[in-house]
Amino acid sequence: MNYGMINYILGWVMTVESAFMILPCVTAVIYGEKQGFAFLIVAVITAVIGALLIRKKPEKQEYHTREGFLIVSLSWVVISIIGALPFVINKDIPSFTDALFETISGFTTTGASILTDIESLSHCSLFWRSFTHWLGGMGVIVFLLVVLPSARGQNMYLMKAESPGPSVDKLVPHVRETARILYGIYLVITLAEIVFLLVAGMPMFDALTTAFGTAGTGGFAIKADSIAGYSVLIQVIVTVFMLMFGINFSAYYLILKKQPKKAFGLEEVRWYLGIVLAAILIIAFNTRHMFDGALQAIQQAAFQVASIITTTGFATTDFNLWPQLSRGLLVAIMFIGACAGSTGGGIKVSRIVILFKAARREIRQYLYPRSVENVSLDDRPVANGNVSGILAFFAIYIIIFTISVILITFNNFDLETSFTSVAATINNIGPGLSLVGPTGNYSMFTWFSKYILMFDMLAGRLELYPMLLLFVPASWKRY
Amino acid sequence: MNYGMINYILGWVMTVESAFMILPCVTAVIYGEKQGFAFLIVAVITAVIGALLIRKKPEKQEYHTREGFLIVSLSWVVISIIGALPFVINKDIPSFTDALFETISGFTTTGASILTDIESLSHCSLFWRSFTHWLGGMGVIVFLLVVLPSARGQNMYLMKAESPGPSVDKLVPHVRETARILYGIYLVITLAEIVFLLVAGMPMFDALTTAFGTAGTGGFAIKADSIAGYSVLIQVIVTVFMLMFGINFSAYYLILKKQPKKAFGLEEVRWYLGIVLAAILIIAFNTRHMFDGALQAIQQAAFQVASIITTTGFATTDFNLWPQLSRGLLVAIMFIGACAGSTGGGIKVSRIVILFKAARREIRQYLYPRSVENVSLDDRPVANGNVSGILAFFAIYIIIFTISVILITFNNFDLETSFTSVAATINNIGPGLSLVGPTGNYSMFTWFSKYILMFDMLAGRLELYPMLLLFVPASWKRY
Repeated sequence: MNYGMINYILGWVMTVESAFMILPCVTAVIYGEKQGFAFLIVAVITAVIGALLIRKKPEKQEYHTREGFLIVSLSWVVISIIGALPFVINKDIPSFTDALFETISGFTTTGASILTDIESLSHCSLFWRSFTHWLGGMGVIVFLLVVLPSARGQNMYLMKAESPGPSVDKLVPHVRETARILYGIYLVITLAEIVFLLVAGMPMFDALTTAFGTAGTGGFAIKADSIAGYSVLIQVIVTVFMLMFGINFSAYYLILKKQPKKAFGLEEVRWYLGIVLAAILIIAFNTRHMFDGALQAIQQAAFQVASIITTTGFATTDFNLWPQLSRGLLVAIMFIGACAGSTGGGIKVSRIVILFKAARREIRQYLYPRSVENVSLDDRPVANGNVSGILAFFAIYIIIFTISVILITFNNFDLETSFTSVAATINNIGPGLSLVGPTGNYSMFTWFSKYILMFDMLAGRLELYPMLLLFVPASWKRY
Repeated sequence: MNYGMINYILGWVMTVESAFMILPCVTAVIYGEKQGFAFLIVAVITAVIGALLIRKKPEKQEYHTREGFLIVSLSWVVISIIGALPFVINKDIPSFTDALFETISGFTTTGASILTDIESLSHCSLFWRSFTHWLGGMGVIVFLLVVLPSARGQNMYLMKAESPGPSVDKLVPHVRETARILYGIYLVITLAEIVFLLVAGMPMFDALTTAFGTAGTGGFAIKADSIAGYSVLIQVIVTVFMLMFGINFSAYYLILKKQPKKAFGLEEVRWYLGIVLAAILIIAFNTRHMFDGALQAIQQAAFQVASIITTTGFATTDFNLWPQLSRGLLVAIMFIGACAGSTGGGIKVSRIVILFKAARREIRQYLYPRSVENVSLDDRPVANGNVSGILAFFAIYIIIFTISVILITFNNFDLETSFTSVAATINNIGPGLSLVGPTGNYSMFTWFSKYILMFDMLAGRLELYPMLLLFVPASWKRY
């Protein structure tokens, strides 16, 4: 275990976070809010500690998968604790547990809230809350890789641990360059959304926070009714951008490289769009009696399907009141999630596709016992080791999921609440059904349950292993 | 595809079923019920058709996994249709769909009922209904292997397809001998239960039907309140026997061979008993306020835990009204199920244990990337092919489960009903929660939903593959 390297990178992570905390300070200045001082204090202290940690550059810069995973999980815990402090200090969220829940929910782009009165928060706190989505969406470590001076090949371990999906597409041979391209695409699409929202008549503050929430597929809104109060045009714009941020970023890179045919030919992207379309049509048909005409039903179904499958979690209607078929379908797509290599959460479309193909292969084994078949994606065979790795991922996912639900039942809320609260946090969505539906929130859980759900949010965002290694004593052994 | 062989074995299956239909006829004679004629008519016609099919012994007796699976799934569909006819003819269950549901529920040892007034049925119908549990528990094909004249090595394919668990323990080298030992043990424990129940003061008819329901881990009772109306002593006897029938029958064979140490050392059996004990203690503690004292709470918790984990489905209390922790735990053990090689359903304890071990291995891969570890059971390594086979089994299980739940939501019952109705049928339990709880039944589902649940019951009992192959066109191709 290379502790020196862990401290060094944690120092950098803290420095980056303190730099970004300038943004809520600026917001406070604009709105003349004294709550901004809390951000300033935390930013300065964090910067000092960060600088001290960076000063001592470790002699041995070498590290492996294990350290990569631990650095990432530790970084996420540290930025969440630091990010929660201003809320506690400026009394916008006085309880530390609640502030930490809200911040982890922000960085992991979950969007599950413990707030009962969102609109009473100061502008600077609302800004920081939404901005954590943007930073967490593409990843704070991936951002670090863009700015970090030394960029050794080992940094791939960090990228692997933070980026969602069964395998990380190295767009270009250099990790640093890959990170830069990803953040570039991310920034450009975010800016595009801000422009569209402004043109559609949204106020600047609303446009910024909504764009952060969309880009990170987070879902924190600054209004009690989420996006329902805005015009239909704005809702449609958000729908389109949610779907765009749920697409594998490799597709955008291919478009940049002028290979749009290849981009739209990506198997995962086609499945993703196919599932979205099917879900919209079924749900629109199933809920048609609740809306004024087919067009509104389709628009509302599209918003909610896009919001749930990309794991954003914005809402424009209370889907908790929908017929059971639609509710059931929403729960199903909660688990599917977005594309790998996007900012969305969930199990990821490519894993689901490989799951189906592995299942089909297994059935064919009984028909043709002597044949040897490969599971393939994009016409390339997936190594058998990767297939069983994905199957094991499911196994671990189900184990964590089941244990979490059982622990949440201690609250004695109905099973739908217990089940969907875990589904909505481990898949980084936000709203679930029943008590945690779009009009509910997570304030009524015990502190114990809140920590379970925080773990689930982090485990979901970092795709299980980094968070699990944190609790395995063997991880911490020195070499 | 060897159609000749399929017809030949189907002929035998029909002959065996018609022979067993003498039992309800005898019951009808004893109770002087005219409803018995229906059984006589069906038995005679079935015997004639069976005899015709057997007469033409196929020239090519060779067959493979594929035929083995198809023979088994076809046999189960055929015996269910034949077994349902008497109910329709004697008007005890006038609707064919309902009669088929009840019979499939019987043979698959599920115990889910569409009856709203069980006690109004004739004795002969009640007897046959419970007897299908006994026959389905160990398997009608396994029974056939005991009596079938030719016993080639290929019959292993049949046994594999019908016996539950990831691998079939051949107790002795010969399939026929293995089948005979299994049925011998099964018969002896069933008789023991009948004797115990009679001594405890149960009437003969009740003792027989209850023992059939326990032995097959089925759960059809002849009273509207299941087992709740009987004495505590009887409830305790049933609890113990349910748990016994959930144990891998290899353990009993080892005891027969005077190796009790080895029997109790079986890893699966120890996990099974451990889970049972833990569940009883947690649920008894959680429900203690609902009962008179700790002893009654433990007795009631033990009955319900044993009933659910062995997938029997008898009830002595309405666990639908229990606190959410207990309800959640019951749902969790619904999926775990009993031991492989027992008469119980569910995913099976050994598969769950291997799942956990595969998950642990995957996590350790991140700590020690260069190490090669085996998953082992009973200190013997499990082949990697088997491990990934089990993981693929889970994948297929989850796919069938999810699609079934979505299709059941068309009824627009609450999600708990939709979820647990599928859980209770695919795992061959019977009662679920909410509308399908211990005091509810399956009569209110549409005929479409009933056929979905019938498929799930058969898929669960035959462990997915045989039923899936039935729907793959390639299965039916001639060589």
